[in-house]
Amino acid sequence: MSNILAINAGSSSLKFQLIHMPEERVQAKGLVERIGLPESVFTIEVNEEKNKNVSDIPDHEAAVKLLLDKLTASGVIQTMEEIDAVGHRIVHGGERFSDSVLITDEVVQQIEDISDLAPLHNPANLTGIHAFREILPDIPMVGVFDTAFHQTMPEKSYLYSLPYEYYEKYGIRKYGFHGTSHKYVSQRASEMMGVPIDQLRLISCHLGNGASIAAIDKGRSIDTSMGFTPLAGVTMGTRSGNIDPALIPFIMEKTGKTADEVINVLNKKSGMLALSGFSSDLRDIEQKADEDERAELALEVFAARIHKYLGSYAARMSGVDAIIFTAGVGENSDVVREKVLTGLEFMGVYWDPSRNNIRGKEAFINYPHSPVKVMVIPTNEEVVIARDTVRLTGKA
Amino acid sequence: MSNILAINAGSSSLKFQLIHMPEERVQAKGLVERIGLPESVFTIEVNEEKNKNVSDIPDHEAAVKLLLDKLTASGVIQTMEEIDAVGHRIVHGGERFSDSVLITDEVVQQIEDISDLAPLHNPANLTGIHAFREILPDIPMVGVFDTAFHQTMPEKSYLYSLPYEYYEKYGIRKYGFHGTSHKYVSQRASEMMGVPIDQLRLISCHLGNGASIAAIDKGRSIDTSMGFTPLAGVTMGTRSGNIDPALIPFIMEKTGKTADEVINVLNKKSGMLALSGFSSDLRDIEQKADEDERAELALEVFAARIHKYLGSYAARMSGVDAIIFTAGVGENSDVVREKVLTGLEFMGVYWDPSRNNIRGKEAFINYPHSPVKVMVIPTNEEVVIARDTVRLTGKA
Repeated sequence: MSNILAINAGSSSLKFQLIHMPEERVQAKGLVERIGLPESVFTIEVNEEKNKNVSDIPDHEAAVKLLLDKLTASGVIQTMEEIDAVGHRIVHGGERFSDSVLITDEVVQQIEDISDLAPLHNPANLTGIHAFREILPDIPMVGVFDTAFHQTMPEKSYLYSLPYEYYEKYGIRKYGFHGTSHKYVSQRASEMMGVPIDQLRLISCHLGNGASIAAIDKGRSIDTSMGFTPLAGVTMGTRSGNIDPALIPFIMEKTGKTADEVINVLNKKSGMLALSGFSSDLRDIEQKADEDERAELALEVFAARIHKYLGSYAARMSGVDAIIFTAGVGENSDVVREKVLTGLEFMGVYWDPSRNNIRGKEAFINYPHSPVKVMVIPTNEEVVIARDTVRLTGKA
Repeated sequence: MSNILAINAGSSSLKFQLIHMPEERVQAKGLVERIGLPESVFTIEVNEEKNKNVSDIPDHEAAVKLLLDKLTASGVIQTMEEIDAVGHRIVHGGERFSDSVLITDEVVQQIEDISDLAPLHNPANLTGIHAFREILPDIPMVGVFDTAFHQTMPEKSYLYSLPYEYYEKYGIRKYGFHGTSHKYVSQRASEMMGVPIDQLRLISCHLGNGASIAAIDKGRSIDTSMGFTPLAGVTMGTRSGNIDPALIPFIMEKTGKTADEVINVLNKKSGMLALSGFSSDLRDIEQKADEDERAELALEVFAARIHKYLGSYAARMSGVDAIIFTAGVGENSDVVREKVLTGLEFMGVYWDPSRNNIRGKEAFINYPHSPVKVMVIPTNEEVVIARDTVRLTGKA
């Protein structure tokens, strides 16, 4: 038995879950926001009881100290020595990390070296690691990478058709993201189906504010819709997904923006927000779709892009055994699932409208006779972090 | 009966075919190259006899004069009055032209207005129109647009997930290209199958040095792989096709290039040329694929991207009735067709290896029992230009 702390550190935030293993029971979870800003917010939930606290938290170290104080004060643990290990989510593992890893000085250096590939995320993730090393210098820690699960992609999936030296010199290739989520739901799908994962061809649709689709053949990711960065692929909340690359200089010329500014528009002011004209939140858009043409358009575009990926990845694996929906939108929106799934009978997908009305729970939503199963599976990245932390630290 | 001259004018070139209608018989064809440069080259072929001529041709007007002289000198026509009408290929018709059009002063102005969208191509195409207007002021002329056939795409296919005002103000959307070719082969496929085109769902693969895939539902293009420009979509001879848009500022920073220079690399130094490291020509790459890893990789990437589009567009139309291969590579490369078609049984594609060994001829290459037909159809854009010219000028 062990207590594992799963950490997801952003530049001014820190999400945490204290998970008791091996039962994978969440004992406490919460969030520190506005770190380094006035009136930082600390939220913790224990036994479904929420507690919120506003104070100035100057840095991640202070956030970690406060977190440990609150955990002991709440009675979940008596002393901080009861925390056996810490697992950190890290966005980018480059080509170096194809699995989670025990954190050492060398590993920290390697994560820093890759920061070039994820300049906003990796340094923020490292801040969390550094804070814990200061406060709990002897505790074993593990890094779990968003990109690691996709490192099984073959060259023909990950290579862009660009000058080869761009790959060799600058690491330009498709990395893919949401790997921890795709891994979790694909394993869960195998369990729910009662079929070993090495006999399955799965398409996993992680649809949240960010969205990515993965083709998972025999448990291994062989293709995914995100690319060098999380901007690529399908339409997302505020991200454009793929566009004609020649549009970038054209938009620069028309608007007077720099290339970086255009990419910023593509990341933050595009996607569902741009199509609907009023919100990046699918719930808002669904609500207005009946009366608002642009809201309906946003839904249609979003669903059409995902729909096409289903065909594409079925072709990639010479067919598919199950399709999985996960993350905020995938778990909760019957409207999106309906639009995405309609018209796939030609590839064996017979979904059942009467079962599609499910929210945030594990379920099959296909007709029993459907050769291709369709599943809703709530994702759980924290539990993968906890499992990998146990596996690599031996703190079982 | 009529003689139609089909013209494709580039910035320093002019391709032509003299076609006798309604039998669609090519009476003469040829090419003027290096217009405006020293030692321009004029080539004409009549009755399979080729004639080549080197002289200085200062501009397109001189090229047209020479062309008319050579046509009469060759005896194909007695006087230039026997030419009944001229059809011009024009790359970009924007949203204005959803069909071919009789050329008037107003139309010329409109084509000029759109040149913003195709700054390299439309002005060159116009040069051809102006030259003929000078020399044959009274002859009726028709413009045939590469983009027109794709104007039937619905909003959810052509809209990017970008700020909506980019579409309204700057015309930023997917236009698609190779429309004349996709139209020709889809009509031919319907004839070869003996099924009316309004009962067919077709996927047309135009694979040449440029390559694009189109989903053609009931004779109407409803989606295509090229985008705002011909750079988008699949890997091509020297073009990258789709990449993560965020790579553009990353490559700019790493290489010190401007955005325009990066797009130039994506257009001219990427694709099969970059992957193989030695050639953009598929024939060279096929020859070396057994011994050269990078050549094999280029083939694999090229075929995989097209393969995925087949699944994607089958999903787009809820299934597919026939797949068409056309243009240089599509008509001639059994190797590419094999790689593209393998593993599509799940969607009803049963291709016959013993029939795949076809080059440049119309043929079915599926097993007779295959629910989805697979066809090789040599494209013929000139005949579409001639047909549209007859239709719009009434010169039957």
